[in-house]
Amino acid sequence: MISRFPDLFKFRGVVSPRNHRFFHHRHPPPPPTPTTTMSDLRPPEHQVAGHRASASKLGPVVDGSGLFYKPLQAGDRGEHEVAFYEAFSAHPAVPPRIRDTFFPRFHGTRLLPTEARPGEPHPHLVLDDLLAGLEAPSVADIKIGAITWPPSSPESYVAKCLAKDRGTTSILLGFRVSGVRVVAPGGAVWSPERPELKALDTAGVRRVLRRYVSSVSGEGVDCALAAAVYGGEGGVLSQLLELKAWFEEQTLFHFYSASILLGYDANAVSSTGVGGGVRVKLVDFAHVAEGDGVIDHNFLGGLCSLIKFISDVVSETPEKLALGS
Amino acid sequence: MISRFPDLFKFRGVVSPRNHRFFHHRHPPPPPTPTTTMSDLRPPEHQVAGHRASASKLGPVVDGSGLFYKPLQAGDRGEHEVAFYEAFSAHPAVPPRIRDTFFPRFHGTRLLPTEARPGEPHPHLVLDDLLAGLEAPSVADIKIGAITWPPSSPESYVAKCLAKDRGTTSILLGFRVSGVRVVAPGGAVWSPERPELKALDTAGVRRVLRRYVSSVSGEGVDCALAAAVYGGEGGVLSQLLELKAWFEEQTLFHFYSASILLGYDANAVSSTGVGGGVRVKLVDFAHVAEGDGVIDHNFLGGLCSLIKFISDVVSETPEKLALGS
Repeated sequence: MISRFPDLFKFRGVVSPRNHRFFHHRHPPPPPTPTTTMSDLRPPEHQVAGHRASASKLGPVVDGSGLFYKPLQAGDRGEHEVAFYEAFSAHPAVPPRIRDTFFPRFHGTRLLPTEARPGEPHPHLVLDDLLAGLEAPSVADIKIGAITWPPSSPESYVAKCLAKDRGTTSILLGFRVSGVRVVAPGGAVWSPERPELKALDTAGVRRVLRRYVSSVSGEGVDCALAAAVYGGEGGVLSQLLELKAWFEEQTLFHFYSASILLGYDANAVSSTGVGGGVRVKLVDFAHVAEGDGVIDHNFLGGLCSLIKFISDVVSETPEKLALGS
Repeated sequence: MISRFPDLFKFRGVVSPRNHRFFHHRHPPPPPTPTTTMSDLRPPEHQVAGHRASASKLGPVVDGSGLFYKPLQAGDRGEHEVAFYEAFSAHPAVPPRIRDTFFPRFHGTRLLPTEARPGEPHPHLVLDDLLAGLEAPSVADIKIGAITWPPSSPESYVAKCLAKDRGTTSILLGFRVSGVRVVAPGGAVWSPERPELKALDTAGVRRVLRRYVSSVSGEGVDCALAAAVYGGEGGVLSQLLELKAWFEEQTLFHFYSASILLGYDANAVSSTGVGGGVRVKLVDFAHVAEGDGVIDHNFLGGLCSLIKFISDVVSETPEKLALGS
């Protein structure tokens, strides 16, 4: 019954962050790597979840060239996430279309200076910046799954996660909104604080998902962008349905505690009424477990629930606003 | 966040078993009800899960006329299950096809004598006997969902369920086999004891699902009936897929701790090679919660996992055995 979580991906030869071998770039080939100094790096402006890089905390940084550097997490989480990216990048059973559409591209790991630990370079995952190219990114980070702990987790970790899963909407809805940032037409940004998000109930989640596609400042919700962002060809809904079809079949990985990151360009979408660089990506793989021939029913269930919420928003949208669908 | 579980279906006017009103037959109209004596009633021969009626325990009984009597469970579970059946039977948003295909028909409640409590008639749910008409029923009871406790459950109940869910395959597979009974061609019955079922791991569940459609005595597994029972028109797989489509949309009920009961007639299927009265039914509704506009992602995820397991069995079956597909 107990899965082999502690040994996960061990066959990939993952080693301690203290081991030099770990910092070599592996598959796929690395991008050009000029010497990066701390002055090139900054926390992403549109980060909505996780720790923000500062003098006291490690956090992700971007360098403006389209790459996203995520510091390896403490304990075995960082190693584990690297191991996942390595296994996933190379796995012959992962359809290239799924890998390219729904996952950040992995460019190995890299030691980088950090503000939090001066003089002590820290290993980072090097990933594509998923929001690169979006002028005014509206972003939502949605943690998928009623259960956020891998089955083999120790009792204390299960208890900690379960308390969060019950205290938020995870158990009830199969997902929770971990972060959201909406750019209104004038450029005003709405981005509720974490305690506000944690306290959301079902109605609150609906409101946030409607607000995410509204083109107003302040508290208003008009869902003017629902058809363009959620509906239509290449919209969130059609991408989520493609992802769902894969999850009905794939038995390689169980994505505990991973998030779906939604992004679109508030400037592009408001000016054209269609498209707007809609992105649907999976992120955060520190708790992925081996699938061992079983589908990820926990992620799939939450994904189906999110799909229902989003299609409810689309179907409630007045037809006159249904651009691009 | 906390659902209104204690008040569930209260609007249906459910009252204590001690209240006479409770024992009136309600929707749909009751079948003819001759005076039933204890001698007419016997535990169903093919029962695979739950307590068996005896001098020391309450358990379901049948009367041979196609009805199944399930004693109301202690505490509020019994009331709760009655309330579910009443709400479900009358709900205008439940498609008749779903109700008729996948649920036992509900004929109200009835006070019956029991062996366990002589002289003290006990209230029973009156339901269709789901296996009536099958000469040699092969049966499997599969409890669906990684989570078996409604979100509003008290801490102690969560802990108790979680221990079982982690100790069996529920968390890992999104379902567990609670009971199975397979009739071999000569009439020999294979029905493992509960401790054996509880100890099943992923490989063990696969083996049981293969054995369920095997036409051999002893330990052998030939999957000779896989195409007839699981595959093909009207087979388990096509019925599960129809159920899945409903669960992707329905937001009325969350079926915590409910089971899918599979049944077929080992005599009919072995003689004809196709059909064999394949049945797919939902049972056990003592822990159903209101859906409140949210899909039952927990049941849906487990159902998708079961579908994958069963389609794996079908696709592994050699073509020469693929009758009826």
